[in-house]
Amino acid sequence: MIIMKSNATPQQVEAVIAQIKAMGLAVHLSQGVEATIIGAIGETHNIPVDRFEGLDGVDIVQRITQPYKLASRQFHSEDSVIPIDGFTVGGNDIIVIAGPCSVESRSQILETAHAVREAGANALRGGVFKPRTSPYAFQGLGEEGLEYLAEAREETGMPIVVEIMSETQLDLMLKYVDVFQVGARNMQNFNLLRALGETRKSILLKRGLSATIEELLMSAEYLLAGGNKQIMLCERGIRTFETTTRNTTDINAIPVLKNLTHLPVILDPSHATGHADYVAAIARAAIAAGADGLIIEVHPDPAHAVSDGKQSLKPEKFVEMVNQVKAIAEVMGRRVAPIQKPVTAGW
Amino acid sequence: MIIMKSNATPQQVEAVIAQIKAMGLAVHLSQGVEATIIGAIGETHNIPVDRFEGLDGVDIVQRITQPYKLASRQFHSEDSVIPIDGFTVGGNDIIVIAGPCSVESRSQILETAHAVREAGANALRGGVFKPRTSPYAFQGLGEEGLEYLAEAREETGMPIVVEIMSETQLDLMLKYVDVFQVGARNMQNFNLLRALGETRKSILLKRGLSATIEELLMSAEYLLAGGNKQIMLCERGIRTFETTTRNTTDINAIPVLKNLTHLPVILDPSHATGHADYVAAIARAAIAAGADGLIIEVHPDPAHAVSDGKQSLKPEKFVEMVNQVKAIAEVMGRRVAPIQKPVTAGW
Amino acid sequence: MIIMKSNATPQQVEAVIAQIKAMGLAVHLSQGVEATIIGAIGETHNIPVDRFEGLDGVDIVQRITQPYKLASRQFHSEDSVIPIDGFTVGGNDIIVIAGPCSVESRSQILETAHAVREAGANALRGGVFKPRTSPYAFQGLGEEGLEYLAEAREETGMPIVVEIMSETQLDLMLKYVDVFQVGARNMQNFNLLRALGETRKSILLKRGLSATIEELLMSAEYLLAGGNKQIMLCERGIRTFETTTRNTTDINAIPVLKNLTHLPVILDPSHATGHADYVAAIARAAIAAGADGLIIEVHPDPAHAVSDGKQSLKPEKFVEMVNQVKAIAEVMGRRVAPIQKPVTAGW
Amino acid sequence: MIIMKSNATPQQVEAVIAQIKAMGLAVHLSQGVEATIIGAIGETHNIPVDRFEGLDGVDIVQRITQPYKLASRQFHSEDSVIPIDGFTVGGNDIIVIAGPCSVESRSQILETAHAVREAGANALRGGVFKPRTSPYAFQGLGEEGLEYLAEAREETGMPIVVEIMSETQLDLMLKYVDVFQVGARNMQNFNLLRALGETRKSILLKRGLSATIEELLMSAEYLLAGGNKQIMLCERGIRTFETTTRNTTDINAIPVLKNLTHLPVILDPSHATGHADYVAAIARAAIAAGADGLIIEVHPDPAHAVSDGKQSLKPEKFVEMVNQVKAIAEVMGRRVAPIQKPVTAGW
Repeated sequence: MIIMKSNATPQQVEAVIAQIKAMGLAVHLSQGVEATIIGAIGETHNIPVDRFEGLDGVDIVQRITQPYKLASRQFHSEDSVIPIDGFTVGGNDIIVIAGPCSVESRSQILETAHAVREAGANALRGGVFKPRTSPYAFQGLGEEGLEYLAEAREETGMPIVVEIMSETQLDLMLKYVDVFQVGARNMQNFNLLRALGETRKSILLKRGLSATIEELLMSAEYLLAGGNKQIMLCERGIRTFETTTRNTTDINAIPVLKNLTHLPVILDPSHATGHADYVAAIARAAIAAGADGLIIEVHPDPAHAVSDGKQSLKPEKFVEMVNQVKAIAEVMGRRVAPIQKPVTAGW
Repeated sequence: MIIMKSNATPQQVEAVIAQIKAMGLAVHLSQGVEATIIGAIGETHNIPVDRFEGLDGVDIVQRITQPYKLASRQFHSEDSVIPIDGFTVGGNDIIVIAGPCSVESRSQILETAHAVREAGANALRGGVFKPRTSPYAFQGLGEEGLEYLAEAREETGMPIVVEIMSETQLDLMLKYVDVFQVGARNMQNFNLLRALGETRKSILLKRGLSATIEELLMSAEYLLAGGNKQIMLCERGIRTFETTTRNTTDINAIPVLKNLTHLPVILDPSHATGHADYVAAIARAAIAAGADGLIIEVHPDPAHAVSDGKQSLKPEKFVEMVNQVKAIAEVMGRRVAPIQKPVTAGW
Repeated sequence: MIIMKSNATPQQVEAVIAQIKAMGLAVHLSQGVEATIIGAIGETHNIPVDRFEGLDGVDIVQRITQPYKLASRQFHSEDSVIPIDGFTVGGNDIIVIAGPCSVESRSQILETAHAVREAGANALRGGVFKPRTSPYAFQGLGEEGLEYLAEAREETGMPIVVEIMSETQLDLMLKYVDVFQVGARNMQNFNLLRALGETRKSILLKRGLSATIEELLMSAEYLLAGGNKQIMLCERGIRTFETTTRNTTDINAIPVLKNLTHLPVILDPSHATGHADYVAAIARAAIAAGADGLIIEVHPDPAHAVSDGKQSLKPEKFVEMVNQVKAIAEVMGRRVAPIQKPVTAGW
Repeated sequence: MIIMKSNATPQQVEAVIAQIKAMGLAVHLSQGVEATIIGAIGETHNIPVDRFEGLDGVDIVQRITQPYKLASRQFHSEDSVIPIDGFTVGGNDIIVIAGPCSVESRSQILETAHAVREAGANALRGGVFKPRTSPYAFQGLGEEGLEYLAEAREETGMPIVVEIMSETQLDLMLKYVDVFQVGARNMQNFNLLRALGETRKSILLKRGLSATIEELLMSAEYLLAGGNKQIMLCERGIRTFETTTRNTTDINAIPVLKNLTHLPVILDPSHATGHADYVAAIARAAIAAGADGLIIEVHPDPAHAVSDGKQSLKPEKFVEMVNQVKAIAEVMGRRVAPIQKPVTAGW
């Protein structure tokens, strides 16, 4: 809908109408005393508002329909339920993904995998390509890390969730990974999104540090437009002025996303707070607010983690957290997804 | 602790030391290879860091102790439990304060009071002096509104929570009000804080729109420094770039505040979201995160509320919300404070 | 303009229309294929949008007219030129207000006054009631400080600009002050704004830490609605995530405000940066962007200032800055207002 | 520098010391009455603080040295002057890069190139791979666009500045591009940064939407660490709560960056404001604040631009802006770089 300036000329109104028609849309014109309003009718979700904001005489361009379609609840009113090896996300079950920030060694990841499995985790996370602010920081083990993760999956039966940073890593990672994580810094790496949209692997799409909820849904739309329907969204805290925590958990995003989209919504209290002491409280809050799952950093020895030690739970604290989350889930009429596959090997 | 620049002169170091001593503090000097560090030891919470940041040769001034004292958990490790007429805040019980944004008429406030009482509310909120962005908007009923609130208290037994905007309203309001609310826009109205610190009435201090958690605690310190110990803190959402909600609920603030201070912490999901549809989810999340209570906008006819209609719950939705909150409270080993005093009159 | 949800019922549309008519406004109804749009025509600036957002069936409420009137350039297209003792603000001349954060002593304020006068300042600033985050910090000299300022005015011929924190200080300050400053923390202290709107003294209204430009103009509207036309606006930096500077100078606000309002716009680079080293660069930028003046913290001995020492210029640095500003002003076809009144006494 | 909690045990202190030594750094221990402080001495810029924040007993980890080295002014005190075909950036000359957001057609880019060249621009910008929020928006002409840009360079003698979105585009673009632009969304695309660091092409690195100044410098460090010294930084506005402009120009970043780093600093007023009407004011402000150049969106027919029409200058407005910038540059003792190479062809 385009609202013209009060002093817009008939020629300017005509120019807007011509532009709308040139886009294959129908026009609805309403000329009031104070304002002329021009509606564009049709498949408007794929028309950027900036195609009209630059036209002479235009005052305000207001979307009535959302700029995303496949991701919207209007398009698909039922909750999307995404099957992952051994469980589903987005239905009645709540899932818990856990593991270290970085895969550091074979023993570290195997030890953590067994510990989180025993505590009730459904999937194992672990980074092998790390987006580090500093070029001098540990950048991940690469394929060696993927092999350790695969071994951990073999032993524990848990699918593995691994961050991908570039479409150039896709071929290698496809051989190992069950769920691709797109990190906050890559939420608008559109080349990567397009490449992942072409795959049929599950994607955990994290919200960017200062991305709006609408932008998160637009990035999901990139993935969906490629034909991949197995998309989970993840709130992981946004950047604000507050400095006592690493980020500000946007807990509002949980009910807002559940309202706007059919996609499952996960929360990452580890990054959203940045402090192990606050993780359990925010994990409980997420489930109480309606989240479909959690992704949690757990490390057997946080003090010696090469990254994110401050926000990683020790396994025993993780057990406590899972128990609290189970209790909240029950009140919500849900349950933490039970472990279905037997663990195939000891450690 | 003052870290000197690597090229600071001995004279500059001496000047810092002299300044510390002039403030009645002791000095600890540590001269390393790369940096000279000067510690100031003693009652440092009342020394602003800007007394040192302007000195020549100073690189970084880093507080080790907190800039507040009476509000800190170090000073008072036990949770403060504040008695209000008929219940307590900050102990095991969770309290629910409810009522309309503005007192609009006698019938509106009486109807709302009975409805929220029946649903399980512990106290009645209602504004009579309204901080409105526009000079042309409804500014509140003033004393007439206070009389209606007093009548509602009489009938329902609920204490009343009313916002004060200026110390010039104090004498009038003292005759009526049980709990003074300091609104977000007045969190740093220091004249008002000093005046309220001199009273012995309970205070609900709301966090400013862009106030840090530390600044909220410094404002609480103003109240405590006056001798008033009955202070409750209230998270009500902060201003960020996200626009789908009116504010961003800083849910992290709940566990952070419970860690830093002994004062009770309340959450206001009505302002923190700005949408009635999201209030219950955030109310549940608050309790799951450890909040001591809630303050909720309820209006018998939100569509015709003179203010905040969009975020006000209808009484029947409020009942639902209270029931959900009760269930979460139970999981947390707490309970919503039961109604203890009989309702004294029908309506 | 109210956009109804696509599934809004005729009854809901009727209810909105009834509400508009009840407010004395005319209705323009436009029923399109995808949306029903209802326009409210008349004096809409005094209608809060929240009177419609809560109505059933309403999707979006979009203002076409601004929510302020007296402050808008549509209402008053010419630049407002405000006469202050000895110069004018908002015309061709650029004014420079300078002085210490706090009046600390008679000698400090007299020394600073002479120094800034000699450097070309037009008015003297100095705080006597200080809004300090900590209750333990220096709170200002009060009336004693006003007397020193009056003496400085006597000696140098400069009008004095002093912050007022509460309407209870008004009677006292009226005896001394030429320009009232409303600080960032009080931009939405509506009781104070109403009291100042009743006076006929010039007001320097600072933008709140996280106030939008529209909110700043709404606060100016409070002052103008009281009949006071001598209002200057002041950008002093907003709160963002960036921490290398105390605040983020919103330099965009200069051209935006010059576009939206006829009121003069001043910039405060001292608070907007928080570092003396960056003040001159931002002062030059402000004038290049079209600001009508500057307010600058100057202290004869910043290292020993009781407040804001880090961001205060030494007098010799202030002289340099004024010279740079004069050169930029000339390029802009303007000039720094010359000193017109002779200095009446030496020091 | 690590500050231990007041109740840290000797074992915890020992563990921190052991960790420092294991990193090849020397230790400086200072045990005060209130705090034990442990300094780490040596090449600390490559040690992430999170390696210490997770250790038991640690209270605060405070960097004294910066986390970047090659980008810092301490490492390289002289301004870096970067030669680009026909001019230099970062010395006395101010450069103006101009052109459309997207290359849309051969005639559009050639017409714009000649227009901006005539107005005094030094280099031509134009996007061929576009990072668009929506998957349905125009994504750029790709190699066809590069060919048109090369033709424009041939005709006008201006080097071309083109955004790269992925390291997979590098080989293709190396054949055409003079200066690679890294867009805001890719500032922390570390794979891309590493690939560009290996080239010896000039890079224009834009600050991310919510990136701190320190993070911008860390991303520059990635490029420098690869051996590429031809790095220009670009402030293009940050995301804040203010909505009257597309972004908030962080004008403070200009003097802050000039203080912290030797790299040239450019400002993009088109994205930083989002409105053509405000571009000239902010361009002038940038130069007055000390920027080394500007990058400006210019389009022969903004109303029909496929992207960013609202913020694009018409060529005649661009001429005006360049003239104003020249006048400000002169006051700053600088000049807009003159056009040195003859235009080789007409159009």
